[in-house]
Amino acid sequence: MTLHAVDLIRKKRDGEALSAEEIRFVVEGAARETIPEEQLSAWLMAVFLRGLSLAELDTLTTAMRYSGEVLDHQGDGRRTVDKHSTGGVGDKTSFLVAPIAAAAGLADPMISGRALGHTGGTLDKLESIPGYRTHLSLDEMRGVIAKCGCCIVGQTNNLVPADRKLYSLRDRTATVESPYLICASIMSKKLAAGLDALVIDVKAGSGAFLRDESESAYLAALMVETGERAGTRTVAIQTDMSQPLGRFAGNWVEIQESLALLGNQRHRLSEDCREVSLVLAGWMIYLGGKARSAEAGRGIAEEKLADGSALRIFREMVAAQGGDLAALDAGAAFHAPRFRRRFCAERSGFFSACNCTGVGWAVQRLGAGREQAGEPVEAQAGLEMHVKLGDKVESGQPLVTLFTEDEALFAEPEHLLRAAITIADEPIDPPTLIRQVINADNKNKFLKPAGHKYD
Amino acid sequence: MTLHAVDLIRKKRDGEALSAEEIRFVVEGAARETIPEEQLSAWLMAVFLRGLSLAELDTLTTAMRYSGEVLDHQGDGRRTVDKHSTGGVGDKTSFLVAPIAAAAGLADPMISGRALGHTGGTLDKLESIPGYRTHLSLDEMRGVIAKCGCCIVGQTNNLVPADRKLYSLRDRTATVESPYLICASIMSKKLAAGLDALVIDVKAGSGAFLRDESESAYLAALMVETGERAGTRTVAIQTDMSQPLGRFAGNWVEIQESLALLGNQRHRLSEDCREVSLVLAGWMIYLGGKARSAEAGRGIAEEKLADGSALRIFREMVAAQGGDLAALDAGAAFHAPRFRRRFCAERSGFFSACNCTGVGWAVQRLGAGREQAGEPVEAQAGLEMHVKLGDKVESGQPLVTLFTEDEALFAEPEHLLRAAITIADEPIDPPTLIRQVINADNKNKFLKPAGHKYD
Repeated sequence: MTLHAVDLIRKKRDGEALSAEEIRFVVEGAARETIPEEQLSAWLMAVFLRGLSLAELDTLTTAMRYSGEVLDHQGDGRRTVDKHSTGGVGDKTSFLVAPIAAAAGLADPMISGRALGHTGGTLDKLESIPGYRTHLSLDEMRGVIAKCGCCIVGQTNNLVPADRKLYSLRDRTATVESPYLICASIMSKKLAAGLDALVIDVKAGSGAFLRDESESAYLAALMVETGERAGTRTVAIQTDMSQPLGRFAGNWVEIQESLALLGNQRHRLSEDCREVSLVLAGWMIYLGGKARSAEAGRGIAEEKLADGSALRIFREMVAAQGGDLAALDAGAAFHAPRFRRRFCAERSGFFSACNCTGVGWAVQRLGAGREQAGEPVEAQAGLEMHVKLGDKVESGQPLVTLFTEDEALFAEPEHLLRAAITIADEPIDPPTLIRQVINADNKNKFLKPAGHKYD
Repeated sequence: MTLHAVDLIRKKRDGEALSAEEIRFVVEGAARETIPEEQLSAWLMAVFLRGLSLAELDTLTTAMRYSGEVLDHQGDGRRTVDKHSTGGVGDKTSFLVAPIAAAAGLADPMISGRALGHTGGTLDKLESIPGYRTHLSLDEMRGVIAKCGCCIVGQTNNLVPADRKLYSLRDRTATVESPYLICASIMSKKLAAGLDALVIDVKAGSGAFLRDESESAYLAALMVETGERAGTRTVAIQTDMSQPLGRFAGNWVEIQESLALLGNQRHRLSEDCREVSLVLAGWMIYLGGKARSAEAGRGIAEEKLADGSALRIFREMVAAQGGDLAALDAGAAFHAPRFRRRFCAERSGFFSACNCTGVGWAVQRLGAGREQAGEPVEAQAGLEMHVKLGDKVESGQPLVTLFTEDEALFAEPEHLLRAAITIADEPIDPPTLIRQVINADNKNKFLKPAGHKYD
């Protein structure tokens, strides 16, 4: 039987399971562009609203993984590990964990993304370093890893072309926030990179793409299931994203905060970012076989910050990818924003609630993100948080400082921050930073078959 | 606030109601092609799976109605009435009811469609008459109506451009069978034609787009609601489509059967088509103010067949639209098919079940329909049914005769017919032809708010 896209859309629309052959037909149609966009979009919306079985998800992920070039033996003799985040605000853990893993004797061929919606983009941040090249050939990637143990690059054109197509469509068709489509997108790319182990930072809270904690745990379990089925040791750590992670959110400002953290400098407002990075790196080191437990791995990670080896590797990597170390060393002054404005408390009380998505949009609208793929972003744009959830604040106290290149851009972010930040009378406990760990041992608990909205 | 298509997709995806402004934004985006196809498709699938409220449906229909040119006073002094069918197999009632209504002193500016899926196309059938022009300008339409009282034409480019776009997308994205989208598509076009009254033939049974009888009644009630809200007297008649209507299905063969019926010739296998046509025409005549009841209208319709006026008007209309009356009079021989094949009973028993959709596909695959919009269809292709549901049959008796221009095309239709036609031991009662009438008086019963799958 010849397969027709419209029949597969109809089948999924009606809640039926697709066969492996049918799913591969859709993926190949996306990769080779033999199925037109309007049909792929309708299929995506049907998947969004009807869901996928674990078998369908496994087939989809595998078909996407092999839709183009597949990396292998990127570790140059070392085991390959990687970390992935579901996306957050002020999330600069990549800049810490990749060099830490490399310092611990592992290889991390990290393939990252750009600003999307309210979340920042690792590549956009790195490109604020003059000369830094995010697009390397496979040979160049191998060279950087051989030299430094890690690289942070963009997706090559040939890697998972099916995802490139579907991801771009999802963004335009409001089909981003599906646990199945998120899982297939992330895992197909990570598995195509040929990893021995993968640690996934699944964000929870008001700044996460999936805000509901049980949904986010469900996504985590889907990714663990899919990774383990493919032979990659996979763990998901659910971490707090109910406020920006660390002190800064933006592009150059996040690079600067990362340098401070890599240099083992401590700052109260950066502690959450340090902690999440150490936990993630600890699991990478453990699953990569360099420690007997995640706790022991975390200890090693702390050492790699304390002895300066992680910072040294980060600088080597930046240099190997063409980045200007002199600019890096020039600090905040190098990309000093033309305009700064303080956003202050209108009353006294406690910082008791944060719509972190709103804060993320504020960052993007200051110029750090883009409306349309391909638009330039401002290296200088971003913000500095002066408070963390639970802090006592006085009326008039600065809560946030905004940075931008265009004074006209202040209005919308200020409006967003006013709506996003709540000062109330009652004190609150700060949110729990590390919510839970989901791995092969306990994943089935989160893949519960009945009662979940996606069943 | 500027509206963004992706936000409206998301809102509908999440089951929220769209505002009138938001719906108009989508319709305008479809008509002017300012919203790309992949976004319209995702929106259509979200509407398909989430449904619309009556208020949303009313707004959608009205916005589509006014998305282009609107006809008015097409009646040349007479009241305008029309009939619409949700699509069937062998459904040639249009060729009867339009001339009957004209003969009764009404005007019918009938705008028809092409073969879609398993159903035939009124325009394709008419174009089997050499010279018949289905695309007239508005002025030409007025001229034909002034002369004959009716015309049967294709949709002009300027009439309801939003539907043109959405309809084409729905066909490709498996979003055809939504009661809301069907209602908006049909009613926007019918209301744009500026009708005083509208009779809708809602098909039920295995050959209907909506096979479930309560779903089909729901669609009927939606259309009555939408029509009455717009000031057009509207009635929906639910009729049987569990087997082809009449004796022939195809293009030229249906024109020939229609001529026989217009000439008041009776044939056992055509009786169902005659009966449905008379009931529909009776309601048109009643709602058009030319009879005191639908029953009385039906009596007038019978007279218009008996006295030859309907046939005369049909021939005048064909001639006015450029059709060759000599070809029409040459009968079946004019477009005699190159190949005929009999499909015979493999056992004795009773014709006890028919997958009428399968029969419809057989007709299309013989060459009467098309795979892709714009492809030519064969005037000669089609089939003749020799039995009706409930008939006793003997092993070896011909059940169907197939007509085609390409012998290689027999295999698939034969396979389809074998699956579609069931001969069993037990006799069955023939299906009820006129299932029920849904109008302003009883529509609310079918728009029940709770328990329906679309609520």
